[in-house]
Amino acid sequence: MSRLEGKVLVAQGGGPTHVINQSVVGVALEARKFTQVTAVYGAVHGVRGIIDENFVDLTRETTHNLEQVAGTPSSGLLSTRDKPDEEYCARMFKVMQAHDIRYFFYVGGNDSSDTVRIVNEQARAADYELRAIHIPKTIDNDLMENDHCPGFGSAARFVAQAFTGVNLDNRALKGVYIGVVMGRHAGFLTAASSLARKYVDDGPHLVYVPERAFDTDKFLADVDRAYTQYGFCNIAVSEGISDAHGIPMISKLMGGDEERDDHGNLQLSGTGALGDLLSQTIKKGLGLKRVRADTFGYLQRAFIGCSSDRDAKEAREVGEKAVQFAMWDNVDGSVVIRRPVLNYSVDYELVPIDMVAGKTRHMPDHFINEAGNGVTEDFLNYGRPLLGSDFPEAHRLRAPSVPKILHV
Amino acid sequence: MSRLEGKVLVAQGGGPTHVINQSVVGVALEARKFTQVTAVYGAVHGVRGIIDENFVDLTRETTHNLEQVAGTPSSGLLSTRDKPDEEYCARMFKVMQAHDIRYFFYVGGNDSSDTVRIVNEQARAADYELRAIHIPKTIDNDLMENDHCPGFGSAARFVAQAFTGVNLDNRALKGVYIGVVMGRHAGFLTAASSLARKYVDDGPHLVYVPERAFDTDKFLADVDRAYTQYGFCNIAVSEGISDAHGIPMISKLMGGDEERDDHGNLQLSGTGALGDLLSQTIKKGLGLKRVRADTFGYLQRAFIGCSSDRDAKEAREVGEKAVQFAMWDNVDGSVVIRRPVLNYSVDYELVPIDMVAGKTRHMPDHFINEAGNGVTEDFLNYGRPLLGSDFPEAHRLRAPSVPKILHV
Repeated sequence: MSRLEGKVLVAQGGGPTHVINQSVVGVALEARKFTQVTAVYGAVHGVRGIIDENFVDLTRETTHNLEQVAGTPSSGLLSTRDKPDEEYCARMFKVMQAHDIRYFFYVGGNDSSDTVRIVNEQARAADYELRAIHIPKTIDNDLMENDHCPGFGSAARFVAQAFTGVNLDNRALKGVYIGVVMGRHAGFLTAASSLARKYVDDGPHLVYVPERAFDTDKFLADVDRAYTQYGFCNIAVSEGISDAHGIPMISKLMGGDEERDDHGNLQLSGTGALGDLLSQTIKKGLGLKRVRADTFGYLQRAFIGCSSDRDAKEAREVGEKAVQFAMWDNVDGSVVIRRPVLNYSVDYELVPIDMVAGKTRHMPDHFINEAGNGVTEDFLNYGRPLLGSDFPEAHRLRAPSVPKILHV
Repeated sequence: MSRLEGKVLVAQGGGPTHVINQSVVGVALEARKFTQVTAVYGAVHGVRGIIDENFVDLTRETTHNLEQVAGTPSSGLLSTRDKPDEEYCARMFKVMQAHDIRYFFYVGGNDSSDTVRIVNEQARAADYELRAIHIPKTIDNDLMENDHCPGFGSAARFVAQAFTGVNLDNRALKGVYIGVVMGRHAGFLTAASSLARKYVDDGPHLVYVPERAFDTDKFLADVDRAYTQYGFCNIAVSEGISDAHGIPMISKLMGGDEERDDHGNLQLSGTGALGDLLSQTIKKGLGLKRVRADTFGYLQRAFIGCSSDRDAKEAREVGEKAVQFAMWDNVDGSVVIRRPVLNYSVDYELVPIDMVAGKTRHMPDHFINEAGNGVTEDFLNYGRPLLGSDFPEAHRLRAPSVPKILHV
């Protein structure tokens, strides 16, 4: 057991999720059980708050309010898009030393885990004893080594609830519907739309993920076939779909007018452009009139009142486990979730940070159908338990038809 | 009391809502209590189903399944965008006669109430005894004579939950956020975004509704001021905002490239264009980088698992009351909701159909602030009870700041 005395620092990085505060609260409450912990600090706005020495003292929070914040989506400690380099990490490390931080827990995705890796190396080089652990979080579900990531289940539930409604709506007033879902490189969240299917003609009838090259002609043929078969067509598309050369469809369809951020990353979220361009492609290519596109946008990751209870509990547990690994085993690394039983149990392990840092996990081949326009039964079995309990179900009338009198 | 023996016909028109099936089930279950009712038919796809003689027999449904459908969003009997003219209504009337329909209940908005008016007139002219009653439904909340309309409370809850999440998200990763909300002529649903406010810096900081002329220069000055004050800015905009000449902003910003339907109506929903154009206006006008827009789209009216229990109960009651007015009082008209007590009770009345048919109600002046970029306390008091019970609440950390050591 670690007898290293000092403070705990916890921070959140990257995009918010429905359950990221659970992990922070898991750290705060668990850490206070250990006598060697002199205080639990939270960094405001992630690594930026460390640089700015902007800390709050979570040891001076009531348990009741911590629990209320745990049940609130988005980042209670606020977040940042800063991606620390070596020099940035050196400044962080200096602040940590000044405040006698001896345990650093960073809740985030693969960029955040890379930050943990660098800080840990610098502490080792400076002979400063520091436990540094990455706590997984991402609605994209794209962290290596994890069966699934905290944050994904709740976002998947949002997408599946949205498509349950879309199925009902577009059946009532028939047309083509496109729902654009977050996911730059991994299609898990888009695939979750399929978890909404109940009746045989329920959609999404077509699902396009970044793991498969998008071909406009094949897309039009797919839509034409589904529309003919069902009389309407519901489509789920990842914002990051790209052609066979890896060129994002949003760039291709916009013809160079697209927008990029400071890192040179294409802006995919916070715009309805991809959905609108695909709508136009269908209208022109198939001559269909009622084609509608919604871009689910930021609602996917922060809509209050839609979370998976299983996801929330696991997000709490990865926070608790991170503290336990650091305190009892005196080790560094990244907490990962394993699933020994498909339906359903989980185990938590600590793996070396190199196995997660800066890497991206994609959907395995057996989750995507052969045509590359839908998911497999394997994916449905994988995804269903992650939605949590009491998923709202759609019901249809079963009343018999009345015989015609006039139009016989 | 009406002793007119014959069948009941119920149908749904226009866009779905979260609770429209409650009204149909209210009609079906209430009508079966009256011995003069020989059967309760449902028309499939609204008035189109009447023309096509496409009926289901709701008398041959189980109560359990009716209750399950009542709790499901969207139109269980399916819907239509057909707007019947005199000739169309004459064909409907012929089918009704053939099936001995003596009671016609049509759940819908102002177009649907106009259909009820025409059918009723034709029946009278043909000396065919028919009770025809319009049952209110619209997420736009724009029916005359009603304090509020069934369907609005649940859609308002969706918008308020969405903005609660947006407040959390855009506070964590600061920028400008625009949420585009449904509403062609009435701003009630956009205004509901304000019901999300809890903390003093919560948004939306700016709300733009169709009832006030939209001025781009004033808009930019508003955004600049709010962004400077809060460090971020959340904006709610109705899809139907128009300039001082009544030209929709989407037309104006698109410069004539916009899309129209068969009726010549501008396509406002199912596209992210307005949000994207307003984003660009802010980026260019104020030089801000992180500007994001989401268009809430069809999720507003059909997202499963997000409904106001009060709205659901009232939607059930207007269905029941419609039957009671027809059976006990032997009259035609439109059921309306009054609110004798602000917080909170309702009464139901039947008013002559002319008072509702084809008319649009707008937000009253005292619901909109003087600057035309926000709502008043009066609106908040009006809207809050409509969200129903157990509205999910956001919580913030209250931990004290830690004194700086290095940056003193």
